[in-house]
Amino acid sequence: MPFAPANGAFAETLRATLPPATFRTIEPRHIEEPRGRWAGTDGLLLAPATTGEVATIIRAASEAGVPVIPYGGGTGLVGGQVSGDLATPIILSMERMTRIRSVDATENALVAEAGVILQTVQDAAADADRLFPLSIAAQGSARIGGILSTNAGGVNVLRYGNARDLCLGIEAVLPDGSILNGLSPLRKNNTGYDLRHLLVGAEGTLGVITAATLKLMPRPVGTGAAMMVVSDPAAALDLLNLARDRIGEGVSAFELIGRMGLDFLAETMPEVRLPLGQPQWSVLIDLGLGVSGDPQAALEGLFEAALDRGLVSDGVIAQSEAQRAEFWAVRESIPLGNRKIGAVSSHDISVPLAAIPGFIAKGPGVIAKIGNFRINCFGHVGDGNLHYNVFPVPGRSRSDHEDDRDAIKAAVHDLVAEHGGSVSAEHGVGRLKVGDLERYVDPTKLAAMRAIKDALDPKGIMNPGAVLRQK
Amino acid sequence: MPFAPANGAFAETLRATLPPATFRTIEPRHIEEPRGRWAGTDGLLLAPATTGEVATIIRAASEAGVPVIPYGGGTGLVGGQVSGDLATPIILSMERMTRIRSVDATENALVAEAGVILQTVQDAAADADRLFPLSIAAQGSARIGGILSTNAGGVNVLRYGNARDLCLGIEAVLPDGSILNGLSPLRKNNTGYDLRHLLVGAEGTLGVITAATLKLMPRPVGTGAAMMVVSDPAAALDLLNLARDRIGEGVSAFELIGRMGLDFLAETMPEVRLPLGQPQWSVLIDLGLGVSGDPQAALEGLFEAALDRGLVSDGVIAQSEAQRAEFWAVRESIPLGNRKIGAVSSHDISVPLAAIPGFIAKGPGVIAKIGNFRINCFGHVGDGNLHYNVFPVPGRSRSDHEDDRDAIKAAVHDLVAEHGGSVSAEHGVGRLKVGDLERYVDPTKLAAMRAIKDALDPKGIMNPGAVLRQK
Repeated sequence: MPFAPANGAFAETLRATLPPATFRTIEPRHIEEPRGRWAGTDGLLLAPATTGEVATIIRAASEAGVPVIPYGGGTGLVGGQVSGDLATPIILSMERMTRIRSVDATENALVAEAGVILQTVQDAAADADRLFPLSIAAQGSARIGGILSTNAGGVNVLRYGNARDLCLGIEAVLPDGSILNGLSPLRKNNTGYDLRHLLVGAEGTLGVITAATLKLMPRPVGTGAAMMVVSDPAAALDLLNLARDRIGEGVSAFELIGRMGLDFLAETMPEVRLPLGQPQWSVLIDLGLGVSGDPQAALEGLFEAALDRGLVSDGVIAQSEAQRAEFWAVRESIPLGNRKIGAVSSHDISVPLAAIPGFIAKGPGVIAKIGNFRINCFGHVGDGNLHYNVFPVPGRSRSDHEDDRDAIKAAVHDLVAEHGGSVSAEHGVGRLKVGDLERYVDPTKLAAMRAIKDALDPKGIMNPGAVLRQK
Repeated sequence: MPFAPANGAFAETLRATLPPATFRTIEPRHIEEPRGRWAGTDGLLLAPATTGEVATIIRAASEAGVPVIPYGGGTGLVGGQVSGDLATPIILSMERMTRIRSVDATENALVAEAGVILQTVQDAAADADRLFPLSIAAQGSARIGGILSTNAGGVNVLRYGNARDLCLGIEAVLPDGSILNGLSPLRKNNTGYDLRHLLVGAEGTLGVITAATLKLMPRPVGTGAAMMVVSDPAAALDLLNLARDRIGEGVSAFELIGRMGLDFLAETMPEVRLPLGQPQWSVLIDLGLGVSGDPQAALEGLFEAALDRGLVSDGVIAQSEAQRAEFWAVRESIPLGNRKIGAVSSHDISVPLAAIPGFIAKGPGVIAKIGNFRINCFGHVGDGNLHYNVFPVPGRSRSDHEDDRDAIKAAVHDLVAEHGGSVSAEHGVGRLKVGDLERYVDPTKLAAMRAIKDALDPKGIMNPGAVLRQK
């Protein structure tokens, strides 16, 4: 079924029912994604201020058969927020729905509208002496609606779970314009199918999340961090299990760092101090404990126990918050270093923990068949989530390898599939990985997804072409 | 559309493709639920041994239009596992699918078939030095398939979440007989809609869960427990937040105990020792800490801080595992005492934490309008989940009040709804609460549930009459 365009006549009918402020002038940021792919050319930019206005827009779109592209902070890395080749869709920006409706420290819950920026949620939680633990690189511009729609992850998933796990309830507008009122903060509520989890991660293809009830956590009283040198990824996994056996949920993050990332930092950002030099494999461990815990002692005990078992050969424990920040600066600079070198291909993948050593061991052989490259493998090893990025060798640049990108991507994704992994760990499917989904995902799952999409959005107006191929 | 019966001719066609052991003689337990309501009269009992056999059965049922009632341990309290007035449905018992397919301590994951009993999963996890934290009264007979299909809760939800939160992946047979292969243990996997969370809690109406990948946790090294007297439910909530601020996730359970439950114990089970006598309101706090934590010290520190704030007036900290078990025996005997007294009406409800004091304060007035009753209110206050049970006064029995039950139920549920709560916290909807769902749940949610049900199960064969009214 061809879509109708959100043309002047359609906009006119909307003007009768929506305030003038809803209508905005489109800017490049609304139709481009960070890496400049799938840029749209046109669209009717609407920025509603209330859930009722969102419902008015979706109802009109549904009746007229006009496609709707929900737009949050624009930071998505898989093109879920851009319109591609659709002719004049509605770009539905959440930028004016920025109210934090409530913060409740007793309930440990915060209700935020879809347009609230993640950093703002973190700050509001801290003001109430609570923690909102989701933490991603784009937190200064990513908005809650997009974060939930893509089920964002980040460094604290090991302890606190991903966006899905931190969402107690949602309010959403479904593809027919009806409003789903599901903002209850209840921890136990078994009244029917869990539509929250269906819309979270659906990337706007089943409706638009307009607000969410988010889970707050106690703020850890005592924090600590350590970097330790491990012999290989298998030792890193053993160390992780030792840490969790000894310290329980107090282990907030456990990041694996390969030597290539440190080499890139030494080359491109020499101002970043590397506390352990440039070991082949190292880990960054972060702790957050309650009042009766002693992070320093816990990390010292862990290091000694790990030394006894031959899991670590060197290590350094932060003696201050400043030093803890310095350790994290190493980890957080690695993506910046990567950008300065310029990756040929980047991969957001996950594999079962037990498969990590095998995957990492086999990767270079698979890549070498395509050409001569450098590999930087790092990431949230506690979740099996690796960033596996492939770079040119010194003297060559990414533009020399445009023709290799597809082969590298396919080789890495095939290797992931062989190891029982996922070709989209934390970034989503968007428009980038529709083909990967068709190739790697269980056909029964795909068929059920299509049946659900058709049932809830029979005209297919919600973010067409994202996640599922446009019919 | 009328259903076809699973009559002799239908059974004959199945005998051609299924082993003889699949066909079993129906017993009363397969068609009755624990309290004797909605008993079926008839049915074809099938007990497949493999997922493939489940698929064969469902495919045949789908083609013939025969209804299927999935049956696990039979412990459900809302009639989801009984056939009601359906003429000769298939009773699909999981009792032969009892394999634990794998236990992986590195991955912190265990794969269990739907028929594995919860206690068996807990034991297998312990054998691998891990914890499977879900704990419910029926754990000696409840099976994993039913536990996930009803999203069971229990005493450890505060710390570890409910069944849904402890499920990493599922294998299921969908209503057309196709097999959904989703047993991946991945913590981060954003490849399309989350069908796992759709089937978990769907009570067998969207397909049959045949196996699940369950999340294992580190076993707490140091455990401890305390009972403390609080002045009222509001003080209990303040104490909970103080405990979580000081001890973080180490607080495993936090149970509120009202005086009536203790009075019932004194009356019916005098052998149960009551460490604090019979205070109006008390709490049981359970801790599980890592190697660097000291539960006794943490509880002593908490008690002193709570005393300073006027939240507690008396308390006792377990000095041994035996004493900790004694505290738990009090909590776990309360439902037994209730049964000896004989409730007129029991309610599995939840309200937002902040609404608990108001709800508890208003309850007696609402019940008094119906008649003279005793109320026992207790439960998992950290989750807002209260068991709110109404009893006859001394000298009268539940049979004197058969005519009051519906009025009491409606009054309690209306009060729950007024406070933004849920009329099914952890037991599910089944056949008992279909009308409650229609009355109290968001109509947009109900309509979307119906659309999903019709899309995945167009003939409506999967557990008809449970959750959604039979069309």
